[in-house]
Amino acid sequence: MQPLVGLIMGSASDWETLQHTAETLEALGVPHEVRVVSAHRTPDLLFEYASGAEERGLEVLIAGAGGAAHLPGMAAAKTVLPVLGVPVQSKALNGMDSLLSIVQMPAGVPTGTLAIGRSGAINAALLAASILGNKHPQFREALQAYRQEQTDNVLSRPDPREET
Amino acid sequence: MQPLVGLIMGSASDWETLQHTAETLEALGVPHEVRVVSAHRTPDLLFEYASGAEERGLEVLIAGAGGAAHLPGMAAAKTVLPVLGVPVQSKALNGMDSLLSIVQMPAGVPTGTLAIGRSGAINAALLAASILGNKHPQFREALQAYRQEQTDNVLSRPDPREET
Amino acid sequence: MQPLVGLIMGSASDWETLQHTAETLEALGVPHEVRVVSAHRTPDLLFEYASGAEERGLEVLIAGAGGAAHLPGMAAAKTVLPVLGVPVQSKALNGMDSLLSIVQMPAGVPTGTLAIGRSGAINAALLAASILGNKHPQFREALQAYRQEQTDNVLSRPDPREET
Amino acid sequence: MQPLVGLIMGSASDWETLQHTAETLEALGVPHEVRVVSAHRTPDLLFEYASGAEERGLEVLIAGAGGAAHLPGMAAAKTVLPVLGVPVQSKALNGMDSLLSIVQMPAGVPTGTLAIGRSGAINAALLAASILGNKHPQFREALQAYRQEQTDNVLSRPDPREET
Amino acid sequence: MQPLVGLIMGSASDWETLQHTAETLEALGVPHEVRVVSAHRTPDLLFEYASGAEERGLEVLIAGAGGAAHLPGMAAAKTVLPVLGVPVQSKALNGMDSLLSIVQMPAGVPTGTLAIGRSGAINAALLAASILGNKHPQFREALQAYRQEQTDNVLSRPDPREET
Amino acid sequence: MQPLVGLIMGSASDWETLQHTAETLEALGVPHEVRVVSAHRTPDLLFEYASGAEERGLEVLIAGAGGAAHLPGMAAAKTVLPVLGVPVQSKALNGMDSLLSIVQMPAGVPTGTLAIGRSGAINAALLAASILGNKHPQFREALQAYRQEQTDNVLSRPDPREET
Amino acid sequence: MQPLVGLIMGSASDWETLQHTAETLEALGVPHEVRVVSAHRTPDLLFEYASGAEERGLEVLIAGAGGAAHLPGMAAAKTVLPVLGVPVQSKALNGMDSLLSIVQMPAGVPTGTLAIGRSGAINAALLAASILGNKHPQFREALQAYRQEQTDNVLSRPDPREET
Amino acid sequence: MQPLVGLIMGSASDWETLQHTAETLEALGVPHEVRVVSAHRTPDLLFEYASGAEERGLEVLIAGAGGAAHLPGMAAAKTVLPVLGVPVQSKALNGMDSLLSIVQMPAGVPTGTLAIGRSGAINAALLAASILGNKHPQFREALQAYRQEQTDNVLSRPDPREET
Repeated sequence: MQPLVGLIMGSASDWETLQHTAETLEALGVPHEVRVVSAHRTPDLLFEYASGAEERGLEVLIAGAGGAAHLPGMAAAKTVLPVLGVPVQSKALNGMDSLLSIVQMPAGVPTGTLAIGRSGAINAALLAASILGNKHPQFREALQAYRQEQTDNVLSRPDPREET
Repeated sequence: MQPLVGLIMGSASDWETLQHTAETLEALGVPHEVRVVSAHRTPDLLFEYASGAEERGLEVLIAGAGGAAHLPGMAAAKTVLPVLGVPVQSKALNGMDSLLSIVQMPAGVPTGTLAIGRSGAINAALLAASILGNKHPQFREALQAYRQEQTDNVLSRPDPREET
Repeated sequence: MQPLVGLIMGSASDWETLQHTAETLEALGVPHEVRVVSAHRTPDLLFEYASGAEERGLEVLIAGAGGAAHLPGMAAAKTVLPVLGVPVQSKALNGMDSLLSIVQMPAGVPTGTLAIGRSGAINAALLAASILGNKHPQFREALQAYRQEQTDNVLSRPDPREET
Repeated sequence: MQPLVGLIMGSASDWETLQHTAETLEALGVPHEVRVVSAHRTPDLLFEYASGAEERGLEVLIAGAGGAAHLPGMAAAKTVLPVLGVPVQSKALNGMDSLLSIVQMPAGVPTGTLAIGRSGAINAALLAASILGNKHPQFREALQAYRQEQTDNVLSRPDPREET
Repeated sequence: MQPLVGLIMGSASDWETLQHTAETLEALGVPHEVRVVSAHRTPDLLFEYASGAEERGLEVLIAGAGGAAHLPGMAAAKTVLPVLGVPVQSKALNGMDSLLSIVQMPAGVPTGTLAIGRSGAINAALLAASILGNKHPQFREALQAYRQEQTDNVLSRPDPREET
Repeated sequence: MQPLVGLIMGSASDWETLQHTAETLEALGVPHEVRVVSAHRTPDLLFEYASGAEERGLEVLIAGAGGAAHLPGMAAAKTVLPVLGVPVQSKALNGMDSLLSIVQMPAGVPTGTLAIGRSGAINAALLAASILGNKHPQFREALQAYRQEQTDNVLSRPDPREET
Repeated sequence: MQPLVGLIMGSASDWETLQHTAETLEALGVPHEVRVVSAHRTPDLLFEYASGAEERGLEVLIAGAGGAAHLPGMAAAKTVLPVLGVPVQSKALNGMDSLLSIVQMPAGVPTGTLAIGRSGAINAALLAASILGNKHPQFREALQAYRQEQTDNVLSRPDPREET
Repeated sequence: MQPLVGLIMGSASDWETLQHTAETLEALGVPHEVRVVSAHRTPDLLFEYASGAEERGLEVLIAGAGGAAHLPGMAAAKTVLPVLGVPVQSKALNGMDSLLSIVQMPAGVPTGTLAIGRSGAINAALLAASILGNKHPQFREALQAYRQEQTDNVLSRPDPREET
């Protein structure tokens, strides 16, 4: 099936975080593509990728980056598709720089920002499915099932002392 | 027309920030409703509102709150619709508390977070239109026009010395 | 004996921190119950738990959570019992997000917040005993003994060079 | 009626914040006393005040202070009564220093910490009433009425556009 | 004379800060041009501007921006000229977001970052003159005179009590 | 020889940091005593220690503590001797809480604060020697020799590539 | 009388803060001199001033500066006299940059750091008097009187409600 | 060939970070020298080094330091050559202290600041080459080749899943 979500990241080393996005998209059956696109090292590719995304049938972009993380914001500057940003945990500042560089966009060009690191990577996939669900009921259903399962998981193991 | 976006805020005092969301939704022609719903003072109303949102035809929720801002995350806990969060600038900590309370959601329940304050409020509307645009082409077009206009505005006034 | 303290946490993984609360409550002889309740994954259970706590004879709630830690504040929204919050140390931001999400509650619904991590977990138990002590003299006495013992421990080993 | 809550602050200038505690205690009918006690300028008075509090019939202490705010923690070191701490918003660091100096207590001596500034001041009174409510049903009832009223206030004015 | 420094900013409102750069360049006799170029609202213009800068004879770029400040880094991605970044003081986070978004560039594409606000704006001009001075001795001399004058200013007024 | 410096710390676990103070005092030949004194667990001992320090012949106090580090400030509240504070690196917040709790003292009662951790521990000893040097020339000389030696160390090994 | 304290600041604009140091030194009868010395604009003067301070009879240096505040640390690098640092509240970062630039000195060269702004300015004078007091009993006595007076001030006005 | 870049660092332990600067300069063929120069332990050497740099033919200085990092700013105070600063990641505060101490220079004396740690160290070399490139075309060409190679590296390996 034609990819609906484009998952891009600034560096191959970000895959350690963004693989959780890909895994979650797969668990939800959301067709997607994965690509390394660097805002700073391959700016032309980024512009080409983002500006052509809608025409190629993508409906959501997810961009992960760390440090002075310009990838989500610059992708958003070149498309009217919804762009979700995942701040990768950076070495020195623990992702606080990544978070602020992604979320503090000026009025006019938004990125929907998720939590720093693995949690945000998983949640970007869930939010993408949620967005797609308005148009494609099967992803809403998949999301409902996913959400129900995690609820059941908590309910079925109420005592933390038995977990460890 | 039936509202597609539900705009909620934790307190009437948040309207100063969230009115920019409402104005931008209006500029884009996106039908929406506005409501004060407090996670802490009216938790039952919040649950009722969020869990009934999909059935009532809403397709995106936007929630703004400040300080220990639980409204977006708790709304997201009760719906599979996409929830966007706007951190309202708080008095003591300038919205850093609002931002972290909204964006740092654990894996499983996402909120798409925008910038602190007015910029984030405007961008929440733009991102909502972007999300709706996948299914409703008229909002994509409205968004494209809005984006083109702001681009033209910059291009037509290249010299900042003439502005002031 | 009927539990007087309800100890809840957002995830089984928080037990690593909150076990120190349970151990300290036990050392003080305070009857308590332990339960995983997630604000985001099991919001209905949280509401049911918190709103029924007083009727079930609980006198203090202790809630531990990390990241966008909504558990203590949302429990407090559904009960008039005193709610104590323990910020669990989060991976990226070291618990600063947990702390601000718990402590920065808006006027109207308080949480009594303890330190991030293990120290806060122990102190939540001590503060719970202190609260219970107003009505139940045996816990005040147990607390006095506990406090005296830790004072004696310091006094009896004045030279740090002999410790290591 | 004999005071049940002792409200102390590090400086007369903190009254601007802590008056909200006193007003809220009054609204709830909680008998209390108010006193300036400085940890640094009157350490002996602080020790005398805190160590004699229980005997004088106080059941909760509320201490507000700013900057290197030692008052709540040092009061807690000299009593087994529950001590609640209110971080006063400081000039340079906006109360982040006050918050960390109050909340980050080491294991062994807790302070239940509220939000920075006015919200925390109001909430300290509400939490004190909540604590007293376990033993004195009239304060629980007063708190329930207070909470119901603020819930009704939100419910009765659902549209923020009419507020301003 | 042909401009040697290109001074760009993300918004006309940044002129309040960046005018100090222009004034300082003028004081040093450095020929320059000034232009509003927005990374998010006019990304194509930014790419065109930055990639053509060297050919047009510019030798240094100075870019000022606030919030998720992508302008300096994206300019640097499209040129091998030295790019200096000035973090504009943002409303909520006082320019900490601007600073981190500009300075925390990943390995491969540098921006030389100055202080937040007016000091950084002045210093960007001084650093540009310093850079140009290696090739154009007149700017080195102008810089030396400027520096000597500010040294003399301090030396000639040693007593701060006479200033106010 | 009679101790001139009193080195106290809030917990035996702080010895890992404060041993560097003791070692440096020894290297400088400054007579000192070492003691665990906890502001929170042994407040009476702290008051007794600090208020009797001058009479016992001490001329400088050095106090190290972590988290809500009240030891230096409370010692300063009970003596007119100079009190130096060493922020011990805390687990969650890396000593930022220790630093602010020590340095942000209100007007009236000062602590001279050093850097977080080992560097601050060493420097507390050097600053104590510097203070003592005004009255006791032998410590000034010892300090001069210590400082000269570290200067010579840098000068004698100018090439870092040979170090590793 | 020959000055015993040298009070220097990086800019005449710092006088607004450092005048509180001068006033407090005067209140205590401590002879002092005041001078603008800029680490960055007059580095040679700084070196000359600091390296000659001891010979000129100064016994304590107090240096105030803001932003990347290098004055206290560089003065300390050129003297073995005790150097106290006062972080001036900076425009963008509220003095957090000043504080860290002064307090986080590497092992080998200490500065005794006071609080940001006016409180730190007053306390630098008190700490200087405390240091001088070891050798000059009259300053210890003056300090004791000053401290007693501020204690009496608090004790004589116990009720904050009468202050405003 | 005569060195054009002077690379200095505050301590031999900074070599772990700054070796990346040296390696990158070598990769670009930029002649350079390397030296340990401590602002605090060898202030006279620093002044001599910086003030003589231009005469010795250096065209750019790169200074790396951690904590209260005064080396870049004090070098800049003694030369009109462009000075680039690399914040070394510090132990307690992860380099946030180093960054602010370097970048927040007052108006009048600039440092061009790079990212914390390894990325900043590499980028300092790239920015130095960029600066030198205005006068020495061979370094501009070397930089273009370096930049092209890193672009090609990203383009040739678009799929992150094949990397790990």
